[in-house]
Amino acid sequence: MISVTEARAKILAALTPTGPETVSLAQGFGRVLAAPVSARLTQPPADVSAMDGFALRAADAHQGAVLRIIGEAPAGHPFPGTIGPGETVRLFTGSVIPAGADSVLIQEDATAEGDTITVNEACPPGKNIRRAGQDFAAGDTLIPSGARLTARAIGLAAAGNHPWLTVHRRPRIAILATGDEILLPGEAIPPGSIVSSNAHALAAFITEHGGEPTILPIAADTLPAIAAGAAAAQNADLLITTGGASVGAYDLIQESLGQTGLALDFWKIAMRPGKPLMFGAIGTLPLLGLPGDPVSAYVCALLFLGPAIARLSGLPATAPATEPARLTTALKPNDQREDYIRATLTRDPTGLAVTPFPIQDSGMLKTLANATALIQRPPHDPDLPAGTQVQIIRLADI
Amino acid sequence: MISVTEARAKILAALTPTGPETVSLAQGFGRVLAAPVSARLTQPPADVSAMDGFALRAADAHQGAVLRIIGEAPAGHPFPGTIGPGETVRLFTGSVIPAGADSVLIQEDATAEGDTITVNEACPPGKNIRRAGQDFAAGDTLIPSGARLTARAIGLAAAGNHPWLTVHRRPRIAILATGDEILLPGEAIPPGSIVSSNAHALAAFITEHGGEPTILPIAADTLPAIAAGAAAAQNADLLITTGGASVGAYDLIQESLGQTGLALDFWKIAMRPGKPLMFGAIGTLPLLGLPGDPVSAYVCALLFLGPAIARLSGLPATAPATEPARLTTALKPNDQREDYIRATLTRDPTGLAVTPFPIQDSGMLKTLANATALIQRPPHDPDLPAGTQVQIIRLADI
Repeated sequence: MISVTEARAKILAALTPTGPETVSLAQGFGRVLAAPVSARLTQPPADVSAMDGFALRAADAHQGAVLRIIGEAPAGHPFPGTIGPGETVRLFTGSVIPAGADSVLIQEDATAEGDTITVNEACPPGKNIRRAGQDFAAGDTLIPSGARLTARAIGLAAAGNHPWLTVHRRPRIAILATGDEILLPGEAIPPGSIVSSNAHALAAFITEHGGEPTILPIAADTLPAIAAGAAAAQNADLLITTGGASVGAYDLIQESLGQTGLALDFWKIAMRPGKPLMFGAIGTLPLLGLPGDPVSAYVCALLFLGPAIARLSGLPATAPATEPARLTTALKPNDQREDYIRATLTRDPTGLAVTPFPIQDSGMLKTLANATALIQRPPHDPDLPAGTQVQIIRLADI
Repeated sequence: MISVTEARAKILAALTPTGPETVSLAQGFGRVLAAPVSARLTQPPADVSAMDGFALRAADAHQGAVLRIIGEAPAGHPFPGTIGPGETVRLFTGSVIPAGADSVLIQEDATAEGDTITVNEACPPGKNIRRAGQDFAAGDTLIPSGARLTARAIGLAAAGNHPWLTVHRRPRIAILATGDEILLPGEAIPPGSIVSSNAHALAAFITEHGGEPTILPIAADTLPAIAAGAAAAQNADLLITTGGASVGAYDLIQESLGQTGLALDFWKIAMRPGKPLMFGAIGTLPLLGLPGDPVSAYVCALLFLGPAIARLSGLPATAPATEPARLTTALKPNDQREDYIRATLTRDPTGLAVTPFPIQDSGMLKTLANATALIQRPPHDPDLPAGTQVQIIRLADI
């Protein structure tokens, strides 16, 4: 058995980012840049007003001064002339500062009457002016390669005048659920059978993390069925299997795929839930074998598949972020396996508090769905009294 | 000017959730349930094994006992007979416990030889058995109406045997950017003009929050152009405008839409960035007018549009979540406007630390894109020395 950290490092070392594709700006949200976005213009392109008001010469803008309005410059319509002594031009947020002016008086500090204004507040040079290039200059890198595009980044790429973006292709991830006992949701479920839930949860997980899932037909517990399922995944960037990876006589994935050229890297890790995690490759197709238990499958997805999708997507690939929280109840000593405990996270005046669910059976999907955090316990962690600070992974907003 | 909290309450009071639609389980991720998901079966459907091992009578399972293997029950293939004294059946995780058995010996504690096993560890009644219904029973509510479907919830709905889900229709949100000075990304940008970035950032924001954005053609600063833009939004659940909402003579939205029946609720709020926020309705179409400044537009989207989409989607609609962080630098006293300061969030051994960007100009989109948090400052907040605890809104993972 290897550790969680070792297992993740081995998986990530075997994966490389997908190639680039061109998408429109409107399709860019959530994608990962495969090339930096550089500014194609300077923003603001010229000195512009930061407020609605009056462009003037600061030297003229003493309290009580009366200035003559010689024009106006709405945004998009720069004033063509030059402001001379005693003159002013009405302008608006974003208007280009006319030649001759070096300051902007905000409209609340001016009294307009006919074609003149009276200055009610002195106005130093540069006041209420956004300098050309204050936001960015042409050629500046706006967003680095390898960044995931947020809504704000999409706005910035637009402002940099980019209608197209170069992003990594979404990783294609095929999911093969195996087992004679599982059937698709909605079917009649005879005694001894259960509904296949892992493939659907994993497809949603993959979508959430920016991948493109393919749910393969369920493979029965026979060597040819499993081999046929894996063969259908040959155009994927990663094949996920669920179930069939432990030492049971009916756990056939290793045997079946061994016959089709599976090079196994590891198949057991020191964690709970989720011991039978398998990783290897069939030719150039990486294969991650998740446990069949839905809770184990999800926790392993969080710890290994999430970072794997990040790596395939061109993102930095790291362990899920942890943060400290205070235990509200005691925990018994941990054994040699790293433990991920389903829990409820709350915020109280002293910070985050975390309460484990009393039953941690890895068959309990409802508990997992209701959890808002996982408590991460290292191997051989001692007895922890209530109040101890532990590390948690958030599963949901609180 | 009204407060941020009042403004949000007015907006939310004017909105109602969209109607229901049926989607397949595979389309359900991220959607909001319009009806609860109840279990259509019991899980586990019968008492099942939690481990790979041997079903037996606990009374027989003393150390050194030799039991006869009378069959096996792989998952999906229940054993048809009954276990009598001195007998055992090989089974696997998820296998139905055969009649007569009341305990499961894990395979690591058994020595198998031919058709017998030797028990190496006593095994009390109920050991390694998952009881029927331990996860959920038929008829149980698995996921309540109004919940957003996570990957885990999709798994749970699948396990409850649901191929279809009843969810709220995605809110359709039309975006009308106005201004003579703005042009679409990729166009030649003449002096005095800038690229329209708000519509694209807002479309991404709407997608991120589960809405369906429509970017309307840019409306020039004329009454008929704005009216035509708004008319094109009549099938939307909400119309967003950007720009044109302040008191400038070229800020025509109120005038134009007043002529087409706009009932204005409010149009100024005590916040920075983002004073000119407008809300009202044209007939039954709610209208939220955002400022033209990209930073103001985004911050207003976060504070008002996010909750508005939540309300339209059938979710609980609340202010964005805040959490405490420690200021690394001092802040001067705040004026009468609630302030949202672009900042960088870091974690150090004492908790979260937050550092404001030195320049807070609302024209600086690059600063916004690089921010990982907003510091929320109430009106009239006094001088804050470095080390003060403030409330922040997270913008990105750190």
